[in-house]
Formats: sequence, C-alpha cells, structure tokens
Amino acid sequence: MMDKIVYSPVGIIHTGFHDKKDAPIQGVFAKDARGEIEIFKQYADGLEDVEGFSHLILIYHFHRSDGNSLISTPFLDDETHGIFSIRHFNRPNPVGLSIVKLENVKGNILEISEVDILDGTPLLDLKPFIPFFDHRDNAKTGWLNNPNIDMARGEPGKHRSK
Amino acid sequence: MMDKIVYSPVGIIHTGFHDKKDAPIQGVFAKDARGEIEIFKQYADGLEDVEGFSHLILIYHFHRSDGNSLISTPFLDDETHGIFSIRHFNRPNPVGLSIVKLENVKGNILEISEVDILDGTPLLDLKPFIPFFDHRDNAKTGWLNNPNIDMARGEPGKHRSK
Repeated sequence: MMDKIVYSPVGIIHTGFHDKKDAPIQGVFAKDARGEIEIFKQYADGLEDVEGFSHLILIYHFHRSDGNSLISTPFLDDETHGIFSIRHFNRPNPVGLSIVKLENVKGNILEISEVDILDGTPLLDLKPFIPFFDHRDNAKTGWLNNPNIDMARGEPGKHRSK
Repeated sequence: MMDKIVYSPVGIIHTGFHDKKDAPIQGVFAKDARGEIEIFKQYADGLEDVEGFSHLILIYHFHRSDGNSLISTPFLDDETHGIFSIRHFNRPNPVGLSIVKLENVKGNILEISEVDILDGTPLLDLKPFIPFFDHRDNAKTGWLNNPNIDMARGEPGKHRSK
C-alpha cells in the first residue's frame, strides 16, 4: 500500500476571491463569478480539444485548508456531520472538486465562470465534464435537504459566514 | 506556489477488476459491478451520516497509471485528444474520479456498486454526490458525441481493449 502520494500542480487558478468568507459555497449558484485557469506551459499541449466542452471538472488542492477535522459543520447546516458527508475544505486530504463553465480558451489560459475557488489555488487535474458519465438521477442527499439548498442560492459571499 | 503536494490514502478500494482491460470504462454503464471501500480505522469517524447519500464521489490515485502523455487516445474514440479533454489514467497527476452507488455501510466498510475502479486503488477522498451542486444541463461534450457513448454501454470488460 502506498504511504505517500506526491503530486505537482499543473496550473494555478486565479479568481477574485481572496478570502474564504468571500467565496461562493458552490459555483452552480454563482453564475457571474469569473476566473482564469493558468495551465503551466509545459502542460499546455494537454488542452487540445478542451474548447469543445462547456464545463470542466477541476480537481485542486485546498491550499488555505487550516486543519483536519473528521466531524465538522458544513456551510449549509448548523449540525455536525462526518467530513466524508460534507464538502468542507478541512479534510484529511484537502482535495477540492469544482465544476466550472468554460467561457474561452486563450493559449494556456482558460477563462471560466461559475467559480467557487479561492485565488491562487493549485490545480492538480482538469477533466471534461460529461453528463452521460457524471449525472445520476434520483440521488438521495441525506442531511442536505431542500431548505438547506435554498440557503446556498444567491450572491457570492452572502452565505459563507462561518 | 507549492511545488509538491503530498497526500496519504484514507482507504483502499477493493473490486473484482484486477486488470485494466477488465474494468468498465465508466461506472454508470456497469450497474452490477460491485466493490468495497475500506476506510482506514483512523478516518472512520468521518463517515458519520454518509449512509444518507445514495451516491458518492471518489477521488483516488490511479496506482496502475504507467506513463504520462499530454496527447492520448481515449477508450471511446480512435482519434487523439489532449489529456485534459479525456479521462485516461495516464495523466500528469494520475488522479481518478468516479461516482459510485452506495449500497450499504458496515462500520468502516462501504459496499458500493456501479464501480469502474481497479482492485487495490488508494482512496484520497470521498465526497457526497449532490445533484444540486453537480448537475449541469445542456453541457456540450466536444469530441464525445452520442455514437461514442453508445460504445460505452454494455457489459464490463467488453470495451476496454486498448
């Protein structure tokens, strides 16, 4: 069994969110939140044909994670839950996942929107979002019911107060 | 900028797929493919409330990745594409993403189905799948059109010949 797994960032994500309290909880509720992905030059050839996809899956390192709690309170609830039942950034491995909208490709720069990511975030991987693979109908969402979801809608920065 | 990012597995994924050519291309097309996630004991408290979710997002290390090519041929096409436009495991950072169905929780063991993952895969993170966050309507899927998708349907092991 591998004990340590070592990655190197393939790029960096630039956004207008410099502080955790300013970032949207989820990108899908932040249609106007824009940013750029800078893919490092040595990986730019890997972007071929990416412009044909409207949405991308970003896997990144929560570089501002400041702890690791197995039980935590998410931004959308007042109750505690296990860390694997929530999306909080203080995780055993602080790996983040976001689906963003691809607006434009300019060389090694990807202009994106629907962004919930802090400025300066190291990007680990980029995958095409493919509904045929990534949608699941009738998924049960446990503690996260509709009233919680309603809290998440609205303007960036309004709801991430904790 | 962080140069190296180091993670430790939080668990290991056990499946019946011991060889790349046997594994399904995508779990959504392999309803009967079963497996187990063994969360290491020291992380088991993080599973609280996970049983309320029907689907989980697994982020894992492609431990059988055997190279890193920026231009590659996916399993669903005969043409080459940039690695960030496909899901192939030979990536700059070999990080895998799967959405699986949660069948049962038994202590630190999660019984899952719709699995497209090789046996012995180190798990980096587990997140709840939440359609409100993770669905996007009318997503464009570039080179991956419907005839390609039709190739992916069917029984595990029938289509991953390359």
